[in-house]
Amino acid sequence: MFGGFGMRGFQVYPVEGLPLISCGDDLAGLTVEALEKLGLPLREGDIIVYSSKLVSKAEGRIVDIRGVEASRRAKVLAAGLGRPAGFIQLVLDESVEVLGIWDGLLIVLDKRGMVCVNAGVDKSNVEGEYSYSLLPEDPYGSAEELLRRLREASGITRLGVVLADSATRPFRKGMIHYALACAGLRSLWDYRGSSDIYGRTLRFKVSSTADMLACAAGLVMGEASEKVGAALIRGLGNLTTEDEECEKLTVDGWQDIYHGVFQPHHRRREAPSDGSPKPISPSPPKIPGERG
Amino acid sequence: MFGGFGMRGFQVYPVEGLPLISCGDDLAGLTVEALEKLGLPLREGDIIVYSSKLVSKAEGRIVDIRGVEASRRAKVLAAGLGRPAGFIQLVLDESVEVLGIWDGLLIVLDKRGMVCVNAGVDKSNVEGEYSYSLLPEDPYGSAEELLRRLREASGITRLGVVLADSATRPFRKGMIHYALACAGLRSLWDYRGSSDIYGRTLRFKVSSTADMLACAAGLVMGEASEKVGAALIRGLGNLTTEDEECEKLTVDGWQDIYHGVFQPHHRRREAPSDGSPKPISPSPPKIPGERG
Repeated sequence: MFGGFGMRGFQVYPVEGLPLISCGDDLAGLTVEALEKLGLPLREGDIIVYSSKLVSKAEGRIVDIRGVEASRRAKVLAAGLGRPAGFIQLVLDESVEVLGIWDGLLIVLDKRGMVCVNAGVDKSNVEGEYSYSLLPEDPYGSAEELLRRLREASGITRLGVVLADSATRPFRKGMIHYALACAGLRSLWDYRGSSDIYGRTLRFKVSSTADMLACAAGLVMGEASEKVGAALIRGLGNLTTEDEECEKLTVDGWQDIYHGVFQPHHRRREAPSDGSPKPISPSPPKIPGERG
Repeated sequence: MFGGFGMRGFQVYPVEGLPLISCGDDLAGLTVEALEKLGLPLREGDIIVYSSKLVSKAEGRIVDIRGVEASRRAKVLAAGLGRPAGFIQLVLDESVEVLGIWDGLLIVLDKRGMVCVNAGVDKSNVEGEYSYSLLPEDPYGSAEELLRRLREASGITRLGVVLADSATRPFRKGMIHYALACAGLRSLWDYRGSSDIYGRTLRFKVSSTADMLACAAGLVMGEASEKVGAALIRGLGNLTTEDEECEKLTVDGWQDIYHGVFQPHHRRREAPSDGSPKPISPSPPKIPGERG
């Protein structure tokens, strides 16, 4: 039967026993060893979800902001936001554009094509008072490389890899995990053209399986001092593929159904509408010290 | 140790064998029976994730649009969008405000406080050519009632319930499941004040566990003809509580970090920016037949 990716159910295990990762470490090899010690050696169809932070550490994407030269723009923003100028410079370097500012957070279009907070520049679980982690430079490339190394180290061919990060979302409380990148996976499951229970053809539904895998893993990985930076998902082998490369989950450009939605509403809150849309002239996002 | 909700891992099972649900059915009782037949009787700490559609059916939230009287506004919108006027009327009835329109979809603030497409009015897996399902009127109330009935029918006290639906997201491909409502759960896990590996205090991180549970379940539920409208999640009992009521996941009002972000960028695409925000006067979302 089509769909229902794990019709017998699946299991999610924390990959415990990984050491703290440093630049140059063989993350895939360490994963294979840790799983063997846990009595969970890799099997065909297994999916490994990594915290993107582990990958950043293995790739040396940790920066001491004391060595970062800040531009005038970064300094002005930093003064307004009460954050270190070197940190702001890192965020700007990782971004294509600043889309908005809220309570000290920069909401940006990052250079990997995501709309996110602070371009993923983050301090938690990074050693050193002045050190911050950056997201992997090429996350899909990193996922593919991890997949190749996992195959080599384990002798298992059919595996999936997801790099997971946590993110806020518009109009929802709390953060969830999402797939920053993946490899060896059917990252999107296209239901279009298949039938529902009553034989009606589905016209719109495409599921982001990679994002849901990241969320499932997020429930065992934690965000604090758990030292669980990876999870094994077993039982969803029909989501894995022979290919390394898989479909990307970012929306290219701004061909998005939500564009144009948020700002007009925000303005309408101040001038209550009678229910029908009206022309609106919003002010730009307020950026302290920036010229309009 | 704090956090890492399922440190020994967890399991997700499709609840197979549920009958097609009709108005008035005892969904909780049927769930307990189905799980017993599957050899998976409920245990303390189990979490049941239901497709919100099953709950809508059990609550009789299925409407034949031929009996819906359409307002002039609905008729005008329907003509412009090429959709039945009765359907548009249902969406308007379920909404507080239309925020935008894209390719025949209405993006609305729905009366339950969510920003979503078509206010959740949906045709898939609903019997009858003219029948559509509406989301439960009071999803948190529905989740709490399901929890009470599950407790009665099983004799198990500590259980969690999530009502899951699938949704599109800004700037991401594909849909993921999210928690429309929940009961008996620590729906948000607050890391603020706890420490990372290096003893640094986390200041921002709150995880939406209910949404991640919905995603984990989404991997076994499918969207087409799988007839799996519920999932059992076992091994995350520390997310369950004695209370029925749990914290809601919608953001009240527009106190959201992303407000003001989307529309200005969309406009900037047409007038490329030099990197610094500028005042912008966007036109309103285009609604065929509506007067500005």
